[in-house]
Amino acid sequence: MNSHINPKYLKQLKKRKSLSADDILKALFRGDKVALSQSITFVESEQQKHQEIVDELISACLPRSGNSIRIGITGVPGVGKSTFIEALGKYLIDMGKKVAVLAVDPSSSISKGSILGDKTRMQDLVTRKEAFIRPTASGSSLGGVARKTRESIILCEAAGYDIILVETVGVGQSETAVHSMTDFFLLLKLAGAGDQLQGIKRGIIEMADAILINKADGDNLRSAQKAKLEFQKALHLYPVKESEWTPKVKCISALNNDGIIKTWQMLDTYIRSVKNNGYFNKNRFRQQKFWLFDSLNQKLKQNFYQHPKLKTELKNQLKAIEEQKISSFKAADELYSFYLKSLRGE
Amino acid sequence: MNSHINPKYLKQLKKRKSLSADDILKALFRGDKVALSQSITFVESEQQKHQEIVDELISACLPRSGNSIRIGITGVPGVGKSTFIEALGKYLIDMGKKVAVLAVDPSSSISKGSILGDKTRMQDLVTRKEAFIRPTASGSSLGGVARKTRESIILCEAAGYDIILVETVGVGQSETAVHSMTDFFLLLKLAGAGDQLQGIKRGIIEMADAILINKADGDNLRSAQKAKLEFQKALHLYPVKESEWTPKVKCISALNNDGIIKTWQMLDTYIRSVKNNGYFNKNRFRQQKFWLFDSLNQKLKQNFYQHPKLKTELKNQLKAIEEQKISSFKAADELYSFYLKSLRGE
Repeated sequence: MNSHINPKYLKQLKKRKSLSADDILKALFRGDKVALSQSITFVESEQQKHQEIVDELISACLPRSGNSIRIGITGVPGVGKSTFIEALGKYLIDMGKKVAVLAVDPSSSISKGSILGDKTRMQDLVTRKEAFIRPTASGSSLGGVARKTRESIILCEAAGYDIILVETVGVGQSETAVHSMTDFFLLLKLAGAGDQLQGIKRGIIEMADAILINKADGDNLRSAQKAKLEFQKALHLYPVKESEWTPKVKCISALNNDGIIKTWQMLDTYIRSVKNNGYFNKNRFRQQKFWLFDSLNQKLKQNFYQHPKLKTELKNQLKAIEEQKISSFKAADELYSFYLKSLRGE
Repeated sequence: MNSHINPKYLKQLKKRKSLSADDILKALFRGDKVALSQSITFVESEQQKHQEIVDELISACLPRSGNSIRIGITGVPGVGKSTFIEALGKYLIDMGKKVAVLAVDPSSSISKGSILGDKTRMQDLVTRKEAFIRPTASGSSLGGVARKTRESIILCEAAGYDIILVETVGVGQSETAVHSMTDFFLLLKLAGAGDQLQGIKRGIIEMADAILINKADGDNLRSAQKAKLEFQKALHLYPVKESEWTPKVKCISALNNDGIIKTWQMLDTYIRSVKNNGYFNKNRFRQQKFWLFDSLNQKLKQNFYQHPKLKTELKNQLKAIEEQKISSFKAADELYSFYLKSLRGE
């Protein structure tokens, strides 16, 4: 286990004080898992001094990043995401790939890591030296968690991982985040769970490049095939994707390793097709723009609402609104003017 | 037609120069439709000098506002919204109410007013002196249109309108805006249009306080009743509303004036119930808070992205991102620091 670790680096690591971003980077570029793990720990840290190291690490890793295939995987708890990831991961490693597994789970700070937290769920995969599995980043806001995962992708790519699997749990907002950082979006479903059409958020179906109906084995097989037809019908209702890709529906059984090869063949066909028609790069750049504007909008709000003087002013205006003394719009005008004046030191 | 117009005010209006906000307000408080119409025209104007008049008008109207019942009405084109509004409006006027009809339609700037634009669709209602019908505000952004409609509600209330009907077309975002400015949210549907469950955005169903299945007449009756049962089943899947109100499903035929009275009785029961349990005021204040934060967030973005120096800087950073020279997150940091420095005049 973890044979991709350099003893020399581990030795360096023990006398931490002397370890610079350069030392970490050297090990990271060699594919050292401890260095990668440590880098992600910096990414996850809220400390200012760690953030400075992160800036240095990310800047150095960027030119070596972007060469992997990033696959988003979602589905409600119990659908078999871990089993599927383990099966797909092992198959890809057998094909000579290096596979990293990350997660976006904004709820994990409360539930203490519902995704990947329990590594034993991927018992086989964790023992492979070509696999890197990182439990979900913790954090209070989805924006924060998403940013951390996105930076972790860059680090994994710089460490030589070819396939990045980003797992999330089906609650809406986190899917959008994962969709905006991956090249292909997989939705895992179960047949006959009473949620064929009704229970699914339309937005998630709309994002999916493929729907995999898992546990399509034994007594489930017939209902899985029925569900497949229903989903195919449902997918027809959506407009053609800009990627020109028609979303696929497949029955699989991750537990029996059934359908894993055809899933990869589908992914491979997709990647070839979108690299060919230019969508792959176009989408990647659009995602980067999205993250730029997302970060900016978060910053704008954060700096505004955390401005110490403004908090009192906001309370006063809310009171005035409640007493019908001012309209919400006028109050917004006044608060914003107040903020600008404070910034200018007036 | 338009008998609620004061000839003296019209005379004043002709020599516009001398007309002050005070003159308009006096007429508005008497319920003069021309004054109300003119006030809304100011609200819709993008000119700075008109915005100053609006601030004055709204401030003066606020203490007289808030006493109406605000009803949001949505449904896809062809569902019969105009016919329904006409039938309900006439019934309410016969009961001694004054009824204003407004619309939120962000698409209208392109389609040149798809909602209420064609006033002939409500031929009977427009001739009633107790009705005020205003075609949709135009504007490029939903935020802008929503703000205008919200300010128009305040003006209508100050002019003595008891019931405000706010119409929108079923496209998602505009429903959220209308939902956040009304006390009751009505969704109009058709039976057998192939969209019973599949075609509806879950979010809209979740917002609805009632679903009315329109055109439940003649050959449609049976399928309407079937749809009613399906919707009732679907509504059961949602958690109990904070208002403690269980959303209702009713079959109506607006054209035959069938179900209009029971619709009003339902609305009346709802209003009594939420005024009784405190939800009515709680919700109104929450809506005002929503609009405060919505306006603030719009302002923050607007001022940032329209900052002249920043536009060039943003282009440079986007180029650097595309060339993998900087991460989206670092670029956001740099852009925000640049903005703060500019504001401080550094």
